[in-house]
Amino acid sequence: MSDEQEIRQLIATWMSATRSGDVATVLSLMSDDVVFLLPGREPMRKAEFAAAAKQQSGEEGPKIDGTSEIQEIKVLGDWAFMWTKLKVVVAPPGAAKTLTRAGHTLSVLKKEDGKWVLARDANLLGPVAD
Amino acid sequence: MSDEQEIRQLIATWMSATRSGDVATVLSLMSDDVVFLLPGREPMRKAEFAAAAKQQSGEEGPKIDGTSEIQEIKVLGDWAFMWTKLKVVVAPPGAAKTLTRAGHTLSVLKKEDGKWVLARDANLLGPVAD
Repeated sequence: MSDEQEIRQLIATWMSATRSGDVATVLSLMSDDVVFLLPGREPMRKAEFAAAAKQQSGEEGPKIDGTSEIQEIKVLGDWAFMWTKLKVVVAPPGAAKTLTRAGHTLSVLKKEDGKWVLARDANLLGPVAD
Repeated sequence: MSDEQEIRQLIATWMSATRSGDVATVLSLMSDDVVFLLPGREPMRKAEFAAAAKQQSGEEGPKIDGTSEIQEIKVLGDWAFMWTKLKVVVAPPGAAKTLTRAGHTLSVLKKEDGKWVLARDANLLGPVAD
């Protein structure tokens, strides 16, 4: 696979692992020094991401589904950047309504030991009407 | 100057040109294919940025001030990425109160003809109490 194909596969794996609540796989797709930038809060690091994801996984957690439309991937040697149009639908357990968030992401990726991982991520998603 | 110093100078020039309403200088600091990602709206390209900035500049426009704290710059040859903690204070003409927006940015920069310019930018700023 080309680097761009490997990055597309990384995103597909991320989405399917999120859907199935496979936290270990999602964590394997990011660098140890990953930084998540989100609106209205301090940057989130890997330990906090792991704790939040573990809390949400399992039978009593929400079901999370999403679609990512990659708009651009630019490979720069062992680094790359990418931006996407992303929609995430969260179904809280027992709730009649789902919550949809949509918007864009801008991400920096790097190749570590031959494997692409997410390194920096800005997530601009906000609530939208279902 | 090193590449990192040149990128720091780019940000300083951007902030001072914004403060003085010097739209031409701000536009010279971005690539022609620049993409601005913002919450709750479609991506903004250079022409739209220019039109909005020109409308806001001049005596009747708001006074815009800001402080940018660079958290990381990583140079990758002729490309770089950077994230910052940014605060922007807008004083509408005649208004008693200023509007403050704060948050993070994640940016991709590139070196064109020996000069660093902004190429992709995710702006996570949201309203905060003054």
